[in-house]
Amino acid sequence: MLGKFITFEGGEGTGKSTQVRALAERLAGHGLDHLVTREPGGTPAAEAIRDLLLSGRAARFGAEGEAYLFAAARADHVDAVIAPALGAGRWVICDRFIDSTRVYQADAGETLLRRLEAAAIGEHVPDLTIILDLPAELGVERAAHRGRSAPPDRFERDALGIHARRRAAFLAIAEAEPERCAVVDADASAEEVAGRVYGVVEARLLTAGGTP
Amino acid sequence: MLGKFITFEGGEGTGKSTQVRALAERLAGHGLDHLVTREPGGTPAAEAIRDLLLSGRAARFGAEGEAYLFAAARADHVDAVIAPALGAGRWVICDRFIDSTRVYQADAGETLLRRLEAAAIGEHVPDLTIILDLPAELGVERAAHRGRSAPPDRFERDALGIHARRRAAFLAIAEAEPERCAVVDADASAEEVAGRVYGVVEARLLTAGGTP
Repeated sequence: MLGKFITFEGGEGTGKSTQVRALAERLAGHGLDHLVTREPGGTPAAEAIRDLLLSGRAARFGAEGEAYLFAAARADHVDAVIAPALGAGRWVICDRFIDSTRVYQADAGETLLRRLEAAAIGEHVPDLTIILDLPAELGVERAAHRGRSAPPDRFERDALGIHARRRAAFLAIAEAEPERCAVVDADASAEEVAGRVYGVVEARLLTAGGTP
Repeated sequence: MLGKFITFEGGEGTGKSTQVRALAERLAGHGLDHLVTREPGGTPAAEAIRDLLLSGRAARFGAEGEAYLFAAARADHVDAVIAPALGAGRWVICDRFIDSTRVYQADAGETLLRRLEAAAIGEHVPDLTIILDLPAELGVERAAHRGRSAPPDRFERDALGIHARRRAAFLAIAEAEPERCAVVDADASAEEVAGRVYGVVEARLLTAGGTP
């Protein structure tokens, strides 16, 4: 049996990393073998490209250039990590995936982005995408106050209005693809949100109806 | 004083690696501090991208996608390795650089390639480009017979007609930019060719007229 592929999406400060860990613990508790990974990154080549992108050193090539770099990193990540794990029956939980590209690299144009997305992931469309939703002001505030030593990367330096537009873009994706996506209100304690996320995973992937 | 930036170009089997080493030895013999590097590659990020490109795993993104990847790798290489060395007064010898991109990635279109080239290298145009020239049949034969354990990469698997067209493309670049480029006939012993190369370096970069 193939494993299930779950991705977490949402703006900065919505708690993706925390919820990825929480879901991983719950899957482990249920004896489900799983792999946690993230984008951009996940392989040596993809991490190297991630560093070029997040440092802003690839910005000189424009939105289109960044889109190609993200796609190349994703292709390597899917080929070398995600597909083999799923093929071996493991569940895969990925922190950001195709929807972050659609939202953050929108300047590259939807036609190019969808073409690159298809080339990069092939048939490995997520079985479930959890979109953690939070009013933009709350997300920005949380991201600013979390303990960190690194300076904000180039995607975090953007202003509040941009965050609000991204939130709307994530919600629009969920509305357009309701079978893949589930929006989870992230304005609650981490435990409460983890419960909500697990409820969705149970309903969509663990109950009889969810496992065809 | 800034160091001088020398690149070696030419098709497969023309002896670039050998001649890079030979020139490095001669520069060292004259007490000139130098750095030898290569493209695609030269930094961890660039080597990772090189691996994606040479394995053919990035081919799914088309010629344009490959062009962006090469450019991103080059930008990192220039920023992290070439520019600092030149700034420190070292000579830099690079095995393949912008002309290989112009010749091998021609399918991406000249407009895009030139834009990416400028973005990637900034002011770091080579002071001298040695184009090693050999009839395509000889180059292909030499490349096929050199001791190697690795299977041919995707650029070496191409057919003879393509090699001949590339040779013509390198010669056209030399004709269009005679101040930067020098064509060296590589159909001779390695020692003989090394002598010819050093003769060009002396004439262009080491004599009074060559160091403005």
